[in-house]
Amino acid sequence: MGHPVVANEAENWEADTISHHASEKQSDKTPSTYYKVGFPPRKTFLKEFADGLKETFFADDPLKPYKDQPGSRRFILGLQFLFPILDWGRKYNLNKFKGDVIAGFTIASLCIPQDIGYAKLANLEPQYGLYSSFVPPLIYALMGSSRDIAIGPVAVVSLLMGSLLQNEIDPINNGEEYLGLAFTATFFAGITQALLGFLRLGFLIDFLSHAAIVGFMGGAAITIGLQQLKGFLGIEKFTKQTDIISVMKSVLSPFPHGWNWPTILIGVIFLVFLLVAKYMAKKNKKFFWLQAIAPLVSVILATFFVYITHADRHGVKIVKHIKKGINPPSFELIHFSGPLLGKGVKIGIITGIIALTEAVAIGRTFADMKDYQLDGNKEMVALGTMNVVGSMTSCYVATGSFSRSAVNYMSGCQTLVSNIVMSIVVFFTLLLITPLFKYTPNAILSSIIISAVLGLIDYEAAFLIWKVDKFDFIACLGTFLGVVFASVEMGLLIAVSLSFAKILLRVTRPRTAILGHLPGTTIYRNIEQYPDSNRVPGILVVRVDSAIYFTNSNYVKERILRWLANEEENLKEKDLPTIEVLIVDMSPVTDIDTSGIHALEDLLKSLQKKEVQLALANPGPVVMEKLHASEFVETIGIDKIFLTVGSAVIKCSHKSNEDV
Amino acid sequence: MGHPVVANEAENWEADTISHHASEKQSDKTPSTYYKVGFPPRKTFLKEFADGLKETFFADDPLKPYKDQPGSRRFILGLQFLFPILDWGRKYNLNKFKGDVIAGFTIASLCIPQDIGYAKLANLEPQYGLYSSFVPPLIYALMGSSRDIAIGPVAVVSLLMGSLLQNEIDPINNGEEYLGLAFTATFFAGITQALLGFLRLGFLIDFLSHAAIVGFMGGAAITIGLQQLKGFLGIEKFTKQTDIISVMKSVLSPFPHGWNWPTILIGVIFLVFLLVAKYMAKKNKKFFWLQAIAPLVSVILATFFVYITHADRHGVKIVKHIKKGINPPSFELIHFSGPLLGKGVKIGIITGIIALTEAVAIGRTFADMKDYQLDGNKEMVALGTMNVVGSMTSCYVATGSFSRSAVNYMSGCQTLVSNIVMSIVVFFTLLLITPLFKYTPNAILSSIIISAVLGLIDYEAAFLIWKVDKFDFIACLGTFLGVVFASVEMGLLIAVSLSFAKILLRVTRPRTAILGHLPGTTIYRNIEQYPDSNRVPGILVVRVDSAIYFTNSNYVKERILRWLANEEENLKEKDLPTIEVLIVDMSPVTDIDTSGIHALEDLLKSLQKKEVQLALANPGPVVMEKLHASEFVETIGIDKIFLTVGSAVIKCSHKSNEDV
Repeated sequence: MGHPVVANEAENWEADTISHHASEKQSDKTPSTYYKVGFPPRKTFLKEFADGLKETFFADDPLKPYKDQPGSRRFILGLQFLFPILDWGRKYNLNKFKGDVIAGFTIASLCIPQDIGYAKLANLEPQYGLYSSFVPPLIYALMGSSRDIAIGPVAVVSLLMGSLLQNEIDPINNGEEYLGLAFTATFFAGITQALLGFLRLGFLIDFLSHAAIVGFMGGAAITIGLQQLKGFLGIEKFTKQTDIISVMKSVLSPFPHGWNWPTILIGVIFLVFLLVAKYMAKKNKKFFWLQAIAPLVSVILATFFVYITHADRHGVKIVKHIKKGINPPSFELIHFSGPLLGKGVKIGIITGIIALTEAVAIGRTFADMKDYQLDGNKEMVALGTMNVVGSMTSCYVATGSFSRSAVNYMSGCQTLVSNIVMSIVVFFTLLLITPLFKYTPNAILSSIIISAVLGLIDYEAAFLIWKVDKFDFIACLGTFLGVVFASVEMGLLIAVSLSFAKILLRVTRPRTAILGHLPGTTIYRNIEQYPDSNRVPGILVVRVDSAIYFTNSNYVKERILRWLANEEENLKEKDLPTIEVLIVDMSPVTDIDTSGIHALEDLLKSLQKKEVQLALANPGPVVMEKLHASEFVETIGIDKIFLTVGSAVIKCSHKSNEDV
Repeated sequence: MGHPVVANEAENWEADTISHHASEKQSDKTPSTYYKVGFPPRKTFLKEFADGLKETFFADDPLKPYKDQPGSRRFILGLQFLFPILDWGRKYNLNKFKGDVIAGFTIASLCIPQDIGYAKLANLEPQYGLYSSFVPPLIYALMGSSRDIAIGPVAVVSLLMGSLLQNEIDPINNGEEYLGLAFTATFFAGITQALLGFLRLGFLIDFLSHAAIVGFMGGAAITIGLQQLKGFLGIEKFTKQTDIISVMKSVLSPFPHGWNWPTILIGVIFLVFLLVAKYMAKKNKKFFWLQAIAPLVSVILATFFVYITHADRHGVKIVKHIKKGINPPSFELIHFSGPLLGKGVKIGIITGIIALTEAVAIGRTFADMKDYQLDGNKEMVALGTMNVVGSMTSCYVATGSFSRSAVNYMSGCQTLVSNIVMSIVVFFTLLLITPLFKYTPNAILSSIIISAVLGLIDYEAAFLIWKVDKFDFIACLGTFLGVVFASVEMGLLIAVSLSFAKILLRVTRPRTAILGHLPGTTIYRNIEQYPDSNRVPGILVVRVDSAIYFTNSNYVKERILRWLANEEENLKEKDLPTIEVLIVDMSPVTDIDTSGIHALEDLLKSLQKKEVQLALANPGPVVMEKLHASEFVETIGIDKIFLTVGSAVIKCSHKSNEDV
């Protein structure tokens, strides 16, 4: 059943060889047309260079809509490009507004208590958190394209900023200078973000792998949660380190007298309330409003409780004072010279990139869910501008918040108007309500943050990573442990290093495989994957699974020779005929450079000494062009380059039979 | 002629689908067996991890000879592994010795004048060059495996070291400290080399691309040549910078009175002599001894000439004094603590890696020519040990010299004994002959160096790089210009950055291609490469030419959707039926990670919204395993994964016809 088919197909396949000689001989027998391995049409250097640039930086063809448009129309399109609100605003209607108002109030109720808590993570006074939920969302609403993101301060960036800033300046004794550095860092975070977008280098943030981000977020969540134990347990003296060992020492050494039991009571009650609300929302989507409203309800109830019981006189720490009034200007606090400039730039670049990663990930997630397109580079310009403006109006780095964006989406937001609504609510809060927060216990803020960051621990994603890719899991775990046991910075360093290590490892040690022939077909496949496949006597087929570059050319050459040596040893033991032809399947070899061509030349020389023929199967357009330019095609002989492995095998086994 | 074949083959190919459904329906019609896309046999995590480690670090299977050997034999094999001389020494005979003695004397005659000149490049006294040609070759002869390499100081490393060292310490006013830092750097260069080999990280030097090395060597040659103008023209005051602009200022501003015309006369005469000798050797291999002996002849003639004419009294600068006697110990000069330790480590790592790159490249070239194998990691241990010992015996960094290794090879060297012979000649030179060099004019040393470094400018390689790969050429040119116009360090920095940039660019923006069907076959190929190929109506076949990782997963997804959108636009214009099926050819996709799987999921969702079916063709073993682990196989449906593009097309077009 199998063999006749092979013989039958064999003729058709043999016809695909590029050898004229063969085609002449076979033409009377075979019906199909003859194919040579194609050369792509030659491009000039400039065309090639321009195409490369376009594919790297303008892959999304952003100028397409401007083509064939009159000047005035181009100007309007350009304005709409910069301020998408001019585009979607024209189609806005009352129905959408209803959805946005509800969503806006919901995320406002969530962001106010979170902002106050997050500001503390950044070692800033509570009002700075609220400031950062007022100006940045307005700017983003004008310039951004995501419809679902909720802008404001977020836990991880606040922690990272606080940690980096306090390495440089003591926030308690040197408050003014600390604040200046914070705004400087925010300014340069914005500049970094906008520049990355403007220079169309947005793809650089893809170099932080998904696995590393999962580990980093999880680690940061644990670290933030542990930091909250100070407020949650009412501990007076607390370490400035963020690693788990220092923190646990700070937590356990004052036990039991350093713990404030009334504080703990408040904290535990409301934490249970928040978690139950969260759990119910997860179980039944009808209850999601419970999760959305729970934090504000907790704050109101706890504040009222403290106010009437005078619990603050029993050691329950309260917020005490939030400055009333909207954002003061802060341009003059930014350092544009002096020793703090460099530090501000460094911290700005790091926090800017992390904030960007978070915002872009959120933006993409919701864009996919609602099926609209996001231009990553444009988003970066919007986020960057918002932070630059923010740094001049007393805001620290704002970005998209995971928890609030999800609530925004679920409350039925339609456009960025929900962010504007939230911003207006925060505005009135700053103007009118801040004194009411005086008696809000810190414990309730800690409970809210703990409950919020729990969502950042994505153990399902970690488990999936474990199942899919062990190296990725090492990156994930390493980053996680780095954040938890050392510091946020160390975790980031591990994340970046392991992400790069993975790329470099893959280009240094590409996979190779021995191919066998699936009985009954002329298809050649990896014999490990298809154990039924057969080797052809006297012929070894090796596939190289990567572009051949300087990083791996020596390895590839030596690996192929090693396959050959192993194979010959095996054949010798079994007294089988030796290998006479080595066929390299080049299908996955998408590119080759001069080192790669040298390696092929060396391989050819080594094989010639062993009297083994070399044949190449299915080189792609780029490889074919380069083999031609380097004259390797002439060295190996054009009749040794085949369209498919199948035709190479038939032609070569033919020949070696003839030779015998 | 074409169509019947397609139909005929179609049945065989269709049978390759993995769908049971299809096979039931078609089994009566088709003769061949049915293949599913194979799953590779499951490996445990430990096995997979161990295999990965082995392939990365022990790809050459160095422990193989020790298998199944008794303990004593293993010990001997181990000793022979560490000291290959114990192995090849046993087969040594008089015939080989004759070849080695001739080669040894030839390279000695070449190395003595070169060493004196190269020491000056490193701002060291001439005897240190000779010291470095005495001890290191002996150590290497015991431990190395190359048979043709000639060990000693080389021009590029001497220049690099001199340039890095004088950035830290002034060699003239602070001679003692400068010498100490030089030995410290040499010590850590050796440690770096030995560690890289011992930790089997030898592949790291592959990260300097061939193109960057060509550019670096060419730039260094120009820089070294320009430096020689000081001695060649007899200029008194000369810049310490190495960039071409500073050097040309130093050269041209004293013209004509600052130029010493007797010096120039000597220099020009012997430079012409050296170049003619070189040219004749190139033309006719019989004359290669002329090239080999010319430098020593020049030195003898020029020295004799100066001695009898008292030209030194007319401003011709002479060597004056070379310390007599062999290498003094220098262990105590090495800094193991203090501020110079860090600097020494830094300079050591840089020079060690550059020296390693040069030695390994030379070793590989000659091993390929004589067809023996070199173990890169073992070579690094040998080179490292030799430099560590060298640093304790007043040697600076030694490595393999291009010019002397070529002469060694051409003089008929058989083993490393030629290095031992050279070393013995240098020993007697140091002991007896150094006073004779007193009247040797510096100009002759400059001529020798200029003539030697000209060989490092490999314009043919540069031209080949230009033809083959434009990006590589940019790396080559950038590095060259960096060395010539800025500094050696800047050139190195450019070389490393551009090498990495290339790797990162390739993993960020992989190629994708639209496939068409070659008439008369079931083969699908890139339509750009094979303009004869046809598209199948209603079906779009896209091939992704790279592993799908976090670095490119978003790009790949968006690029595929963009192909689809463009295609649909084209079809609309021509009023043709729209695309109903998108087939992704996964053949070149050698690996996928969690980000890649997310991208596939997102792609599937987007396509479902457009009512386009997604099918995958020929996923490899690793990809198949991961698609399975992540349950994407279930999401897409196992009947949407095909063995070949051909079978996917037939199955899918079948189905869409049925749907209609």
